[in-house]
Amino acid sequence: MLDKIAIFGVGLIGGSFALALRQAGAVRHVVGVGRRRASLERALVLGIIDEIASSVADAVAGADLVLLAAPVAQTENILREIAPVLGASTVVTDAGSTKSDVVAAARRALGSKIAQFIPGHPIAGREMNGPDAALAQLYAGKKVVIAALLENTDEHIERVAAAWRCCGATIYRLSPERHDQVFAAVSHLPHLLAYALVDDIARKPNADLLFQYAASGFRDFTRIAGSSPEMWRDITLANRDAMLVELDAYIAQLQRMRAMIATDDGAALEAVYANARHARENWISAIESGDKAQAAAPATNTPQGAQQ
Amino acid sequence: MLDKIAIFGVGLIGGSFALALRQAGAVRHVVGVGRRRASLERALVLGIIDEIASSVADAVAGADLVLLAAPVAQTENILREIAPVLGASTVVTDAGSTKSDVVAAARRALGSKIAQFIPGHPIAGREMNGPDAALAQLYAGKKVVIAALLENTDEHIERVAAAWRCCGATIYRLSPERHDQVFAAVSHLPHLLAYALVDDIARKPNADLLFQYAASGFRDFTRIAGSSPEMWRDITLANRDAMLVELDAYIAQLQRMRAMIATDDGAALEAVYANARHARENWISAIESGDKAQAAAPATNTPQGAQQ
Repeated sequence: MLDKIAIFGVGLIGGSFALALRQAGAVRHVVGVGRRRASLERALVLGIIDEIASSVADAVAGADLVLLAAPVAQTENILREIAPVLGASTVVTDAGSTKSDVVAAARRALGSKIAQFIPGHPIAGREMNGPDAALAQLYAGKKVVIAALLENTDEHIERVAAAWRCCGATIYRLSPERHDQVFAAVSHLPHLLAYALVDDIARKPNADLLFQYAASGFRDFTRIAGSSPEMWRDITLANRDAMLVELDAYIAQLQRMRAMIATDDGAALEAVYANARHARENWISAIESGDKAQAAAPATNTPQGAQQ
Repeated sequence: MLDKIAIFGVGLIGGSFALALRQAGAVRHVVGVGRRRASLERALVLGIIDEIASSVADAVAGADLVLLAAPVAQTENILREIAPVLGASTVVTDAGSTKSDVVAAARRALGSKIAQFIPGHPIAGREMNGPDAALAQLYAGKKVVIAALLENTDEHIERVAAAWRCCGATIYRLSPERHDQVFAAVSHLPHLLAYALVDDIARKPNADLLFQYAASGFRDFTRIAGSSPEMWRDITLANRDAMLVELDAYIAQLQRMRAMIATDDGAALEAVYANARHARENWISAIESGDKAQAAAPATNTPQGAQQ
């Protein structure tokens, strides 16, 4: 049981975390902090938080856990405000989609208190934002990556992990650098590719004609191009090094495939397509058997997390 | 009312066409032709066809309409078999995803009878194949492109269009060349891009780790990489010229975006992302208002087709 938590940013991510912990009976008191008064008041009305903090010092004082769930661009400033008032018994975690840049910001802002910062990344979301979008079930069955630092203690890491498990999530562990490489490949690059295709088509002189014939395959392929441009601009640049590596590999792949088309090499092209379909089928099967295993497990607020 | 139709290939595409026409009471007699006896017998049992043709000559004799719905690679050979037995009152159409190559094959195979060939492309499908996958509703609310030739008569074009309208489809018209440019951009290239990404990831040494973190965005983005590698190899190469144009434009787009990332140009990157999201939102709104208009229209087997 956590006695007190403080949530910076009481929207979809922070609000869902608070709701899930409350529903699990895992927290006594939730304090909200944020730049927009209206969001904090709405979170109070919705029962996401018990109290709007009067100051950062007030929010952090005596907290077992602080979650940063404001836009990532604010992370360093928030940590600078927290640093002087951060007591030794409080851990701070975040929910950002990139980790190396957050770790660098945390080192600058927290200095000698860096050991109290446990970088995190819940892999969950919706296409809505704000306190009204928050759901107690948002993290149920989802992954949360903890990208722990060498300075973190096992006890502090476990406090953050246990809170996410109370939300129904499974904990995975990656170093901050590995985290950023992995998500560049499976999330950040696909977002860029989807945005790139829609923009490319939209700028053609016959764009209206083209969109008229786009069908369900195009709709699914480009769904992630409906995401927030500001947020994805920040993620793309925050993860620049890994993004450039993945993007270069992908451009090289397209150039190889271009040569297959130009030389009418059907066998090589089919090999790429068949390998992709096969790999995707294996991946879908693995997800589905994982879902079944989870559905078959006894209902509990603290599922066994695959630790790795 | 069509007195007799002949279907070459009684699977998803051909079978659904026959079922829809029968359900609409728009055809008296359906003859099936195909290489696999078991599929033809199954189509007979399922009530898709009335008769298995004893020969191509038998199938085509006296038919008002012949639909080619066998794999596209067979199109030219089938047309060569049809040519000598094709009567003046019969029209032939197809359901292939590319049109320039089909037109070229038809010109070679049919010679002076080319005017009787009306190229078509129904924009509908499922992830299943064969007679058991056929659905009378497959084409309801979907588009069918008729890529008519200069030699086609209005009466022949209208006979094909009317049959598709009986299936619940809306008719659009494009030249064969324009058709191929449009579908390279909105369908064929996205398929290649999805296959390319999954293959690229699957070939990395840490592929298993990467797939473990792929989530719903990746799933939707790569859904079309679950399509048939043989079919998409054929489509990619059949539409080679238009594919190379689109692929080159896309690679150039990625190289521009790479430069934005490398130079930390957030404003330029956000402009691409925002333009893409905006264009996609407009497209989705247009689809949804189209769907509503269709839902509000009186139920009929012959909806008003947007002719263009």
